Amino acid sequence: MTVSATTEKLLAAKKSKGLSFADLETTIGRDEVWIAALFYQQASASEDEATKLLTALELSLDLVPALTAFPIKGLGPIVPTDPLIYRFYEIMQVYGMPMKEIIHEKFGDGIMSAIDFTLDIDKIEDPKGDRVQVTMNGKFLAYKKW
Amino acid sequence: MTVSATTEKLLAAKKSKGLSFADLETTIGRDEVWIAALFYQQASASEDEATKLLTALELSLDLVPALTAFPIKGLGPIVPTDPLIYRFYEIMQVYGMPMKEIIHEKFGDGIMSAIDFTLDIDKIEDPKGDRVQVTMNGKFLAYKKW
Amino acid sequence: MTVSATTEKLLAAKKSKGLSFADLETTIGRDEVWIAALFYQQASASEDEATKLLTALELSLDLVPALTAFPIKGLGPIVPTDPLIYRFYEIMQVYGMPMKEIIHEKFGDGIMSAIDFTLDIDKIEDPKGDRVQVTMNGKFLAYKKW
Amino acid sequence: MTVSATTEKLLAAKKSKGLSFADLETTIGRDEVWIAALFYQQASASEDEATKLLTALELSLDLVPALTAFPIKGLGPIVPTDPLIYRFYEIMQVYGMPMKEIIHEKFGDGIMSAIDFTLDIDKIEDPKGDRVQVTMNGKFLAYKKW
Amino acid sequence: MTVSATTEKLLAAKKSKGLSFADLETTIGRDEVWIAALFYQQASASEDEATKLLTALELSLDLVPALTAFPIKGLGPIVPTDPLIYRFYEIMQVYGMPMKEIIHEKFGDGIMSAIDFTLDIDKIEDPKGDRVQVTMNGKFLAYKKW
Amino acid sequence: MTVSATTEKLLAAKKSKGLSFADLETTIGRDEVWIAALFYQQASASEDEATKLLTALELSLDLVPALTAFPIKGLGPIVPTDPLIYRFYEIMQVYGMPMKEIIHEKFGDGIMSAIDFTLDIDKIEDPKGDRVQVTMNGKFLAYKKW
Amino acid sequence: MTVSATTEKLLAAKKSKGLSFADLETTIGRDEVWIAALFYQQASASEDEATKLLTALELSLDLVPALTAFPIKGLGPIVPTDPLIYRFYEIMQVYGMPMKEIIHEKFGDGIMSAIDFTLDIDKIEDPKGDRVQVTMNGKFLAYKKW
Amino acid sequence: MTVSATTEKLLAAKKSKGLSFADLETTIGRDEVWIAALFYQQASASEDEATKLLTALELSLDLVPALTAFPIKGLGPIVPTDPLIYRFYEIMQVYGMPMKEIIHEKFGDGIMSAIDFTLDIDKIEDPKGDRVQVTMNGKFLAYKKW
Amino acid sequence: MTVSATTEKLLAAKKSKGLSFADLETTIGRDEVWIAALFYQQASASEDEATKLLTALELSLDLVPALTAFPIKGLGPIVPTDPLIYRFYEIMQVYGMPMKEIIHEKFGDGIMSAIDFTLDIDKIEDPKGDRVQVTMNGKFLAYKKW
Amino acid sequence: MTVSATTEKLLAAKKSKGLSFADLETTIGRDEVWIAALFYQQASASEDEATKLLTALELSLDLVPALTAFPIKGLGPIVPTDPLIYRFYEIMQVYGMPMKEIIHEKFGDGIMSAIDFTLDIDKIEDPKGDRVQVTMNGKFLAYKKW
Repeated sequence: MTVSATTEKLLAAKKSKGLSFADLETTIGRDEVWIAALFYQQASASEDEATKLLTALELSLDLVPALTAFPIKGLGPIVPTDPLIYRFYEIMQVYGMPMKEIIHEKFGDGIMSAIDFTLDIDKIEDPKGDRVQVTMNGKFLAYKKW
Repeated sequence: MTVSATTEKLLAAKKSKGLSFADLETTIGRDEVWIAALFYQQASASEDEATKLLTALELSLDLVPALTAFPIKGLGPIVPTDPLIYRFYEIMQVYGMPMKEIIHEKFGDGIMSAIDFTLDIDKIEDPKGDRVQVTMNGKFLAYKKW
Repeated sequence: MTVSATTEKLLAAKKSKGLSFADLETTIGRDEVWIAALFYQQASASEDEATKLLTALELSLDLVPALTAFPIKGLGPIVPTDPLIYRFYEIMQVYGMPMKEIIHEKFGDGIMSAIDFTLDIDKIEDPKGDRVQVTMNGKFLAYKKW
Repeated sequence: MTVSATTEKLLAAKKSKGLSFADLETTIGRDEVWIAALFYQQASASEDEATKLLTALELSLDLVPALTAFPIKGLGPIVPTDPLIYRFYEIMQVYGMPMKEIIHEKFGDGIMSAIDFTLDIDKIEDPKGDRVQVTMNGKFLAYKKW
Repeated sequence: MTVSATTEKLLAAKKSKGLSFADLETTIGRDEVWIAALFYQQASASEDEATKLLTALELSLDLVPALTAFPIKGLGPIVPTDPLIYRFYEIMQVYGMPMKEIIHEKFGDGIMSAIDFTLDIDKIEDPKGDRVQVTMNGKFLAYKKW
Repeated sequence: MTVSATTEKLLAAKKSKGLSFADLETTIGRDEVWIAALFYQQASASEDEATKLLTALELSLDLVPALTAFPIKGLGPIVPTDPLIYRFYEIMQVYGMPMKEIIHEKFGDGIMSAIDFTLDIDKIEDPKGDRVQVTMNGKFLAYKKW
Repeated sequence: MTVSATTEKLLAAKKSKGLSFADLETTIGRDEVWIAALFYQQASASEDEATKLLTALELSLDLVPALTAFPIKGLGPIVPTDPLIYRFYEIMQVYGMPMKEIIHEKFGDGIMSAIDFTLDIDKIEDPKGDRVQVTMNGKFLAYKKW
Repeated sequence: MTVSATTEKLLAAKKSKGLSFADLETTIGRDEVWIAALFYQQASASEDEATKLLTALELSLDLVPALTAFPIKGLGPIVPTDPLIYRFYEIMQVYGMPMKEIIHEKFGDGIMSAIDFTLDIDKIEDPKGDRVQVTMNGKFLAYKKW
Repeated sequence: MTVSATTEKLLAAKKSKGLSFADLETTIGRDEVWIAALFYQQASASEDEATKLLTALELSLDLVPALTAFPIKGLGPIVPTDPLIYRFYEIMQVYGMPMKEIIHEKFGDGIMSAIDFTLDIDKIEDPKGDRVQVTMNGKFLAYKKW
Repeated sequence: MTVSATTEKLLAAKKSKGLSFADLETTIGRDEVWIAALFYQQASASEDEATKLLTALELSLDLVPALTAFPIKGLGPIVPTDPLIYRFYEIMQVYGMPMKEIIHEKFGDGIMSAIDFTLDIDKIEDPKGDRVQVTMNGKFLAYKKW
């Protein structure tokens, strides 16, 4: 997987300034996951958001257009090899059809939107080993009939 | 995607008896998503859980071995065509690398387990359109060095 | 591509009764394309719609559950070989990125919904050769920020 | 997906001059979608059209040959990851066979041409959310027998 | 590659009656290649053509609908393993781009139609070894601008 | 598809001198299609042919070795996206098995050689629209038994 | 890999009669490898050869047409999993380009025919471990220029 | 297929000095096919062999490490497009299972080694057309039971 | 993944008799992993081993030929979806090149045999969670030069 | 397979200093396989481990961030062509399902962790040919029910 020059600059600046995504959350007023998506050019910032981010990272405002453009989205190969990312594909292999059953039972024919959608990641401390909690929240969209 | 004869029997019995997965949750003492995974032979029940489920569905106990076996897991094609399931793959294409960044920042080098893992689906009522909420919770596993 | 037994029964009944999809449009009160999607089990009918359709085709009402179920959608292989269907894939190869430019220019960052969506097919008579007109109409969904 | 240097120059010039594709439509006398296709080197301009476009964008006429050449067409991967473009593939997965049924019923054995073909994109304002309307119009070509 | 039951019946009847495709050419008034395409359900016959063919082969007229239907076309895998068929794919690998150059030079931007198209196969006797001659003839279709 | 630097030089020189492949046919004494194949480094010239071609194009004779080498043949992806080239693949999908039937019927078990092979492209003028005629001619090779 | 019913019958009869392919070589007058290819329906026998084989195996002559037909050749998946067969693919991965160099150096531009071709397998006894010797012998075919 | 800089230097030096692989066979004391494999960095030379080869080609001894390293082996794509190399894949498609039968019949359960293995290429002169003879010789390895 | 009827019979008999693979190890005198490989028709038994196994399982000796045949080996899809099996593929993605480095450093150019090879699985009890230990042991095979 | 510039620097420094991975094992206090994984950027070092390694190799400490980063893991193509690495994939094809049976029998439903995991490679001297021994040791993870 190749990462764009813009992404590399953003990640390097964040590292050299010792900022976490949570720090940037405060500065920009957006969730840390959304900001990480912006780093990877998977989301489109407003002029104001782009300026705040570049200022916080002490990077040139020449990068504003790259952050406000409408990106060609999608980062990875069809079957990812990185173990952390693969696990989410495996979850869909194992639990995809069961989730479809439950969602249809609760909502009817339609889907969960991946556009009108938010995603949060929390660390749940646990003496038996901390846990990663991922919360996805998307509007239900019913299939239109015509 | 072909569904096994066992899965078909379970789904048909549930439909004819007018039971929801939430109803089965009460009967069996397991979450509705896990029960749906069992329907699709993606999870392995105890003798007791299998018996309770088959009794609730008024199906023959001859299906106990099919439900307590260790299944070959994974249901779908490499790139799924069903829109509901595809959205979760799209989420990984768009947010996969950002999630990797956030998880590593919060936990270090490792992964979220897909085995010591739970998944819940809730309906969040909203006047602008109800929302699907998916909560994944997996133990963080740090890479061992040796 | 294998077609389900239900689809085959519906197509055979329609053929033997000499009905067109436009005829069924009148009977059922839904567009001919949506009805064809129902034939191929890509859409989910209400009890009432299913009953009207099966009655019009003089088929057993035992097929009602198959027509009201929530189907696993997606009919074809990754690269279709049928020339009529392939042309639409070719259109996306050639005009996909240009369409993305125009849609983003007119609407901002987001997508055209394929769920809150209708599709119509018209025959435009033309002395130089009749023309097929396909009209797709989907709600614009803006990417949510959070 | 890599975009050619020519495409990048055209897009950058258009952006820096603050022109929309609709503006270029007036200048060149071609539809905005066709012009966007020319930007992505998926269409072949006449000398005159190329000159008008480059003049409007204040770019060197050295780019004329690149715009009048016969391009190797097709922009994307077999399964696109960008959500906006993917939706059109999903539409074909769900509605491809139904469309084939309707087109054959109305026209007989043949296809809609993707060559003698136009494509328009309109914004339909709607208080419940604006809608994207895509109109494809292609000559029907009947299979020749010999 | 699986061949349909209809194709198998047609091929078996032709073999048992000792007829060549050239013989059927005389009976039906269509070219032998087109008739072979009909055998493989890649072409759509008129009622009259279907009746003549089935009569010549002494097969039941129950097969008429299968021969007059609008088939889902395309027979083979993405990369065929049969050496005779593979050679045509190899020809395209080696001579595809050269052909594109020559056709564009002679005709401009467009394609050779595969729909308004005929294909003939002749045996050219030659003392150094007989030769197969394949003649493809398709209407040139120029890309429409709009 | 990436084209080699040698191919680009040959095509640019031909364009700047205003020569057609038919013009080069006269100069070199080989068919225009074979010469186009040489441009794309899919054929291997003699020293004499290479010298004639480079002289006609006023290019350095340093390119002689590139034109007389034994190339690694094959230009394209498994499923080509360019519409002109794709049509030939579609022809094989639709007419491949019928052609196999006819060739075996006329010649027995074997193949048409793609090596002892020629390919010609002609423009057939027609008031209803000019036609592209492609003539392939290959030696029949019978399977050896041993 | 699925093997045809004909192949299974031939293999079972050979086993039950305790015949080796070398025994059949004597009976039929063809090499054991060619006979094994006939078993797998990758070669086409004459009426006489088919009759001799079926008689030797005490099988019904009803199988003659299956053995004299022109088979759709090619047995395996794109990347075979059987270790014995995979080794030959690995040999091509490692030694393919070196072989191409040597063959072009000795013969010029062209290929080794896989049609006018024989293949023999011998057991070479060796105290350090017996060796498998595979001898392929194909006519050199020079690329035709035209 | 991209060839390494080392391979290109070796091939260019060999060409400019007018040496054949057979000439190098004499100098280095290894078979011409093995030497060609070394050129393509598919084999690992001793210091002495590397020095002899580079001296014969009048190349810098700086290339010794590249020739004595343990290469990542495998040169080609999954399905090669070059006709000369493809023929060997086709041979495996057609004769792979027959060879498996013969080898198991002669040796039992196991494989021919592709490591303890040699490969020779000979030109067999023949008035009807010269023939390429490829001789592969590998140790038989029996499956261990434990 | 489809499992053969033979495999299903063996697994069912073992289950109904309450035998573990370790029990069969004692009866047959082969390792439990090898016996499991025989169950899945990935290994070839002697007449004696097959008889002992079928007797222990109280199955008909009609299955002897299926167990002594030379199987077409390889069970799974290119990228397995079952999490347990996938982990071994992931290990190769992550540690494959490092293992290659270490093996070449210790042994020189060559491979670990997968034929003259054994594999053992042990349960290592551990208060922090039991561990799976997999021990692979294969003969080193050095690349032959010739 | 392309190797990163960091990996190349590490390998070159190790070679020029004549160090083995076993030597580095002593210096750094980690196993040689883990160190090789670090060379290939498949593992993440502590500051201290990175400093020790770079000092031992006399490389600039500018490489510390590259060695302490959280890498995108996974090195190879879906089906590797290198024979040494392929053998491990073949082992999974042949023994994958048998291993699944044995592990489930000994441990129940779950997997061997590839994260809480170690891998060792030993050279077992043997007069009949030295053997490679690979020992994998991973924590058993039981599927959670919820």
